[in-house]
Amino acid sequence: MLEEIGRTARQASYVLAQLSSTEKNQVLLTIADLLEKNAHEILNENQKDLDNARQSGINDAILDRLRLTIDRLAVIAHDVRQVSKLVDPIGQIIDGGLLNSGLRLERRRTPLGVIGVIYEARPNVTIDIAALCLKTGNAAIMRGGKETTFTNQMLGHVIQLALKEHKLPAEAIQIINNTDRALVTKMLKLDRYIDMIIPRGGEALHKLCKQESTIPVITGGIGVCHTFVDQSANIDKALAIIENAKTQRPSTCNTLETLLVHRAIADTFLPQLSARIAQKGVTLHADKASFCFLEKGPANVVPIQQGDFDDEWLSLDLNVAIVGNIDEAIAHIRLHGSQHSDAILTQEMKNADYFINHVDSAVVYINASTRFTDGAQFGLGSEVAVSTQKLHARGPMGLEALTTYKWIGYGNDLIRR
Amino acid sequence: MLEEIGRTARQASYVLAQLSSTEKNQVLLTIADLLEKNAHEILNENQKDLDNARQSGINDAILDRLRLTIDRLAVIAHDVRQVSKLVDPIGQIIDGGLLNSGLRLERRRTPLGVIGVIYEARPNVTIDIAALCLKTGNAAIMRGGKETTFTNQMLGHVIQLALKEHKLPAEAIQIINNTDRALVTKMLKLDRYIDMIIPRGGEALHKLCKQESTIPVITGGIGVCHTFVDQSANIDKALAIIENAKTQRPSTCNTLETLLVHRAIADTFLPQLSARIAQKGVTLHADKASFCFLEKGPANVVPIQQGDFDDEWLSLDLNVAIVGNIDEAIAHIRLHGSQHSDAILTQEMKNADYFINHVDSAVVYINASTRFTDGAQFGLGSEVAVSTQKLHARGPMGLEALTTYKWIGYGNDLIRR
Repeated sequence: MLEEIGRTARQASYVLAQLSSTEKNQVLLTIADLLEKNAHEILNENQKDLDNARQSGINDAILDRLRLTIDRLAVIAHDVRQVSKLVDPIGQIIDGGLLNSGLRLERRRTPLGVIGVIYEARPNVTIDIAALCLKTGNAAIMRGGKETTFTNQMLGHVIQLALKEHKLPAEAIQIINNTDRALVTKMLKLDRYIDMIIPRGGEALHKLCKQESTIPVITGGIGVCHTFVDQSANIDKALAIIENAKTQRPSTCNTLETLLVHRAIADTFLPQLSARIAQKGVTLHADKASFCFLEKGPANVVPIQQGDFDDEWLSLDLNVAIVGNIDEAIAHIRLHGSQHSDAILTQEMKNADYFINHVDSAVVYINASTRFTDGAQFGLGSEVAVSTQKLHARGPMGLEALTTYKWIGYGNDLIRR
Repeated sequence: MLEEIGRTARQASYVLAQLSSTEKNQVLLTIADLLEKNAHEILNENQKDLDNARQSGINDAILDRLRLTIDRLAVIAHDVRQVSKLVDPIGQIIDGGLLNSGLRLERRRTPLGVIGVIYEARPNVTIDIAALCLKTGNAAIMRGGKETTFTNQMLGHVIQLALKEHKLPAEAIQIINNTDRALVTKMLKLDRYIDMIIPRGGEALHKLCKQESTIPVITGGIGVCHTFVDQSANIDKALAIIENAKTQRPSTCNTLETLLVHRAIADTFLPQLSARIAQKGVTLHADKASFCFLEKGPANVVPIQQGDFDDEWLSLDLNVAIVGNIDEAIAHIRLHGSQHSDAILTQEMKNADYFINHVDSAVVYINASTRFTDGAQFGLGSEVAVSTQKLHARGPMGLEALTTYKWIGYGNDLIRR
């Protein structure tokens, strides 16, 4: 079955690759319309998933991610219409020139082909990724979580209706509703038909993909993000940035997880941090050196435990450590970071430069909140994922990350000498 | 041991990433000088490898690839000096701008970090790749074939001498001389320390890397290249291109392996092909339809066997098949090709365009020999490998393929609203 899904997706990708921007945008607009037109049916199916989830005792946070409403569907449809307005990267000439041999060479941006997406319980991802793939002329094979079986089946149906309305192969977007785990492993070996795997989920999923896949995988989305408060930092402004980075939306991967404070300012800075953060209900996980400055403050403080520095909290928890200088801060980030987003708060140009040059992360900030790491914030118009690896795409991935290029060599009956 | 190699290479990569172009070029020039200064010692070690290889009955082609001479060393040293003259991509600003939020964003080209290279019996690759990695500020861990143990040890020694002369960590370039196969598998799991794996070898090596590696792998180098002779092709010029593509250097991956001929010209074209190619000693492997046109010609002709269309010959052998139209040619290439280099010979603009748009290969040619697929020919100044996959780099890989980028966000005490 999987073989057949792969084969037909590949065939469909050849058709999509030939579409003009207008043709692709028309499909997107039809999808948006059909989402609204079929809202009742979609919400019915979503209710079945919600009922099943509630029965199996799933927690409220996941239930909420699973839930669709008329308003949420409208937002999803709006987002699809926004994607239709983005500039289509396909067909762009990246570079080229006339070579000494007489060969006229051109590098043209093309779709990747077939994208494999493995994700968890978020029905909006189904529409998001389908829209981005269609926009860039890619076919997609998507495997969602078992919690969203009914919803995804219905969303897949709506997408395929739109494809058929425009006389395009329905196999361009296929949603696998078999939630057998073994199927994921098999999908990861389908290198004959799938060109790229995007896992959207937790660390276990990323690890599975890295280990099992024979297809290139874009890993990412794990953010153990740091902020280093340098000796020269403006303390008031630093506190505002830290509060924003930790509390604006703690469940996201660009949330601050570990604060590194220069020893020289620890005695003045840490009590103020405690006061500020206490109002927001943040628990501080303090290393030995910072604990003594924090234990008398108003914030909830606990001693840091083994492993805390290496994991995302994704909650109102913040690690705090004191470092003796900028090199210690960099060494800490190299050891414990996930190469996602790291920041320095400083008024010294020299230290800012040093930090940028030495911290090897997808995004490095100076005097800014790590929360900015996001496709929309970066002006990419959309976000496929946030890559923390270094090949193909790093950081927020926009439409360009769903493309490759081909070289085209024009000769006038040319042979190599 | 491998863990230690990885750890020290990562540490060294942090040092290399901070070097200026001039500092890196000085190391390259020292390597070139030391290759010439130590020629006697290098050739001595190479002789040991040659003796061992001869004793184990290795064939002449491989012996020749293994052999170094004073002249060949001079060429290798010359190539290193050429690399020093290339433009250094590191530090280039790819793009950037001031966002509505007030964030000033900049995308800067940086080294990948640590490159893992697994290759076979070509001592020149050791120096080539080391030079390209150093030029781009990357550390490298290289594992050569067992046939080159002595040569590689000596070449590694020379590279490390040059690094030390410039007070750089010798661990920046490490050559693994343990030729245990199990070690390769372990190396492929060192994702903590290695950022990219480049296999340089046959299909079995590429397959092993795809299956076992948890590190992103650049696969490529397998070229089942096609040329389609359209009905409108200029026959004399087509014959010259085909001869060049097949015979100029048959052992390379950009060599033509399968010729697809439009049925409408088969009766006139194939006998002329036979006459032309017979002078060059090429054996034609003909499908049923072409066999009857070829069997009476002067060229050596055999019926094609199962699987011939799917493999590289890398010798003076050429598959021939007749196709009814351009779509059949494209379908054949999609089914049997390796997405390396494919060409159309035609005088019809419409067919040229159609072929370019529908053939999904790294390089697509119009009226030119597939032999042009090469870093130097493409003006890239050097070649790390030829990628036939679609992520990160496609086709000939120059210095840029050894880089990634980081995003740098400058804020003026900026929080996300």
